[in-house]
Amino acid sequence: MVKKLRPQNYNEVLYVGHFFRKGLPVLMDLSDLSEDEAKQLVDFATGLVFARRGSLDRVDRRLFLLQP
Amino acid sequence: MVKKLRPQNYNEVLYVGHFFRKGLPVLMDLSDLSEDEAKQLVDFATGLVFARRGSLDRVDRRLFLLQP
Repeated sequence: MVKKLRPQNYNEVLYVGHFFRKGLPVLMDLSDLSEDEAKQLVDFATGLVFARRGSLDRVDRRLFLLQP
Repeated sequence: MVKKLRPQNYNEVLYVGHFFRKGLPVLMDLSDLSEDEAKQLVDFATGLVFARRGSLDRVDRRLFLLQP
Protein backbone atom coordinates (compact mmCIF):
# COMPACT_ATOMS: atom_id res chain seq x y z
CA MET A 1 0.00 0.00 0.00
CA VAL A 2 1.27 3.42 -0.97
CA LYS A 3 0.29 6.23 1.37
CA LYS A 4 -0.75 9.36 -0.53
CA LEU A 5 -0.23 12.63 1.28
CA ARG A 6 -0.79 16.22 0.24
CA PRO A 7 0.76 18.42 2.94
CA GLN A 8 -0.92 21.80 3.47
CA ASN A 9 2.03 23.34 5.32
CA TYR A 10 5.54 22.60 6.48
CA ASN A 11 4.46 20.99 9.74
CA GLU A 12 2.58 18.28 7.89
CA VAL A 13 5.92 16.87 6.83
CA LEU A 14 5.61 14.98 10.09
CA TYR A 15 2.91 12.78 8.56
CA VAL A 16 5.24 11.97 5.69
CA GLY A 17 7.92 10.99 8.19
CA HIS A 18 5.48 9.04 10.30
CA PHE A 19 4.26 6.72 7.52
CA PHE A 20 7.69 6.39 5.93
CA ARG A 21 9.20 5.40 9.30
CA LYS A 22 6.56 2.69 9.56
CA GLY A 23 7.94 1.21 6.34
CA LEU A 24 5.30 2.44 3.89
CA PRO A 25 6.04 3.99 0.52
CA VAL A 26 4.76 7.58 0.50
CA LEU A 27 3.55 9.54 -2.50
CA MET A 28 4.06 13.16 -1.49
CA ASP A 29 2.10 15.75 -3.43
CA LEU A 30 3.47 19.26 -2.87
CA SER A 31 0.96 21.08 -5.08
CA ASP A 32 -0.57 23.07 -2.24
CA LEU A 33 2.70 24.49 -0.92
CA SER A 34 4.70 27.59 -1.79
CA GLU A 35 7.94 27.08 -3.69
CA ASP A 36 9.96 27.65 -0.50
CA GLU A 37 7.95 25.21 1.60
CA ALA A 38 8.09 22.61 -1.18
CA LYS A 39 11.89 22.86 -1.24
CA GLN A 40 12.03 22.39 2.52
CA LEU A 41 9.91 19.26 2.31
CA VAL A 42 12.12 17.86 -0.43
CA ASP A 43 15.22 18.44 1.73
CA PHE A 44 13.51 16.81 4.70
CA ALA A 45 12.48 13.85 2.53
CA THR A 46 16.04 13.56 1.20
CA GLY A 47 17.34 13.16 4.75
CA LEU A 48 14.55 10.79 5.63
CA VAL A 49 15.27 8.34 2.81
CA PHE A 50 19.04 8.69 3.22
CA ALA A 51 18.83 7.54 6.83
CA ARG A 52 17.10 4.33 5.79
CA ARG A 53 18.86 3.76 2.45
CA GLY A 54 15.55 4.23 0.72
CA SER A 55 14.85 6.08 -2.51
CA LEU A 56 13.28 9.38 -3.48
CA ASP A 57 11.94 9.78 -7.00
CA ARG A 58 10.39 12.79 -8.63
CA VAL A 59 7.43 11.43 -10.55
CA ASP A 60 6.05 14.80 -11.56
CA ARG A 61 6.99 18.44 -10.97
CA ARG A 62 5.35 18.55 -7.55
CA LEU A 63 5.00 14.83 -6.89
CA PHE A 64 7.58 12.64 -5.16
CA LEU A 65 7.68 8.97 -4.30
CA LEU A 66 9.57 7.95 -1.16
CA GLN A 67 10.36 4.28 -0.79
CA PRO A 68 11.84 2.77 2.37
CA MET B 1 33.02 9.45 19.66
CA VAL B 2 31.34 12.50 18.18
CA LYS B 3 32.12 13.16 14.52
CA LYS B 4 32.74 16.85 13.86
CA LEU B 5 31.95 18.04 10.35
CA ARG B 6 32.08 21.46 8.76
CA PRO B 7 30.41 21.15 5.34
CA GLN B 8 31.73 23.50 2.65
CA ASN B 9 28.74 23.13 0.35
CA TYR B 10 25.36 21.42 0.11
CA ASN B 11 26.75 18.19 -1.33
CA GLU B 12 28.83 17.59 1.78
CA VAL B 13 25.63 16.89 3.65
CA LEU B 14 26.26 13.35 2.41
CA TYR B 15 29.12 13.03 4.92
CA VAL B 16 26.78 14.06 7.69
CA GLY B 17 24.32 11.39 6.57
CA HIS B 18 27.05 8.81 6.19
CA PHE B 19 28.38 9.05 9.74
CA PHE B 20 24.95 9.48 11.29
CA ARG B 21 23.70 6.38 9.49
CA LYS B 22 26.61 4.46 10.97
CA GLY B 23 25.26 5.34 14.40
CA LEU B 24 27.65 8.15 15.34
CA PRO B 25 26.59 11.45 16.88
CA VAL B 26 27.51 14.26 14.48
CA LEU B 27 28.38 17.83 15.39
CA MET B 28 27.52 19.80 12.27
CA ASP B 29 29.12 23.22 11.93
CA LEU B 30 27.40 25.31 9.26
CA SER B 31 29.60 28.40 9.64
CA ASP B 32 31.02 28.17 6.13
CA LEU B 33 27.68 28.02 4.33
CA SER B 34 25.33 30.66 3.02
CA GLU B 35 22.08 31.19 4.89
CA ASP B 36 20.14 29.29 2.20
CA GLU B 37 22.49 26.32 2.15
CA ALA B 38 22.53 26.18 5.95
CA LYS B 39 18.72 26.01 5.98
CA GLN B 40 18.78 23.17 3.47
CA LEU B 41 21.22 21.21 5.62
CA VAL B 42 19.06 21.73 8.68
CA ASP B 43 16.01 20.41 6.80
CA PHE B 44 18.01 17.42 5.58
CA ALA B 45 19.25 16.76 9.12
CA THR B 46 15.69 17.04 10.44
CA GLY B 47 14.60 14.26 8.09
CA LEU B 48 17.65 12.21 8.90
CA VAL B 49 17.07 12.18 12.66
CA PHE B 50 13.31 11.77 12.27
CA ALA B 51 13.79 8.55 10.31
CA ARG B 52 15.81 7.04 13.14
CA ARG B 53 13.98 8.61 16.08
CA GLY B 54 17.12 10.48 16.95
CA SER B 55 17.50 14.06 18.12
CA LEU B 56 18.67 17.33 16.60
CA ASP B 57 19.82 20.08 18.93
CA ARG B 58 20.97 23.57 18.10
CA VAL B 59 23.97 24.13 20.34
CA ASP B 60 24.95 27.46 18.81
CA ARG B 61 23.65 29.67 16.01
CA ARG B 62 25.40 27.66 13.31
CA LEU B 63 26.19 24.50 15.25
CA PHE B 64 23.93 21.46 15.49
CA LEU B 65 24.26 18.14 17.28
CA LEU B 66 22.62 15.13 15.66
CA GLN B 67 22.23 12.06 17.83
CA PRO B 68 21.05 8.70 16.51
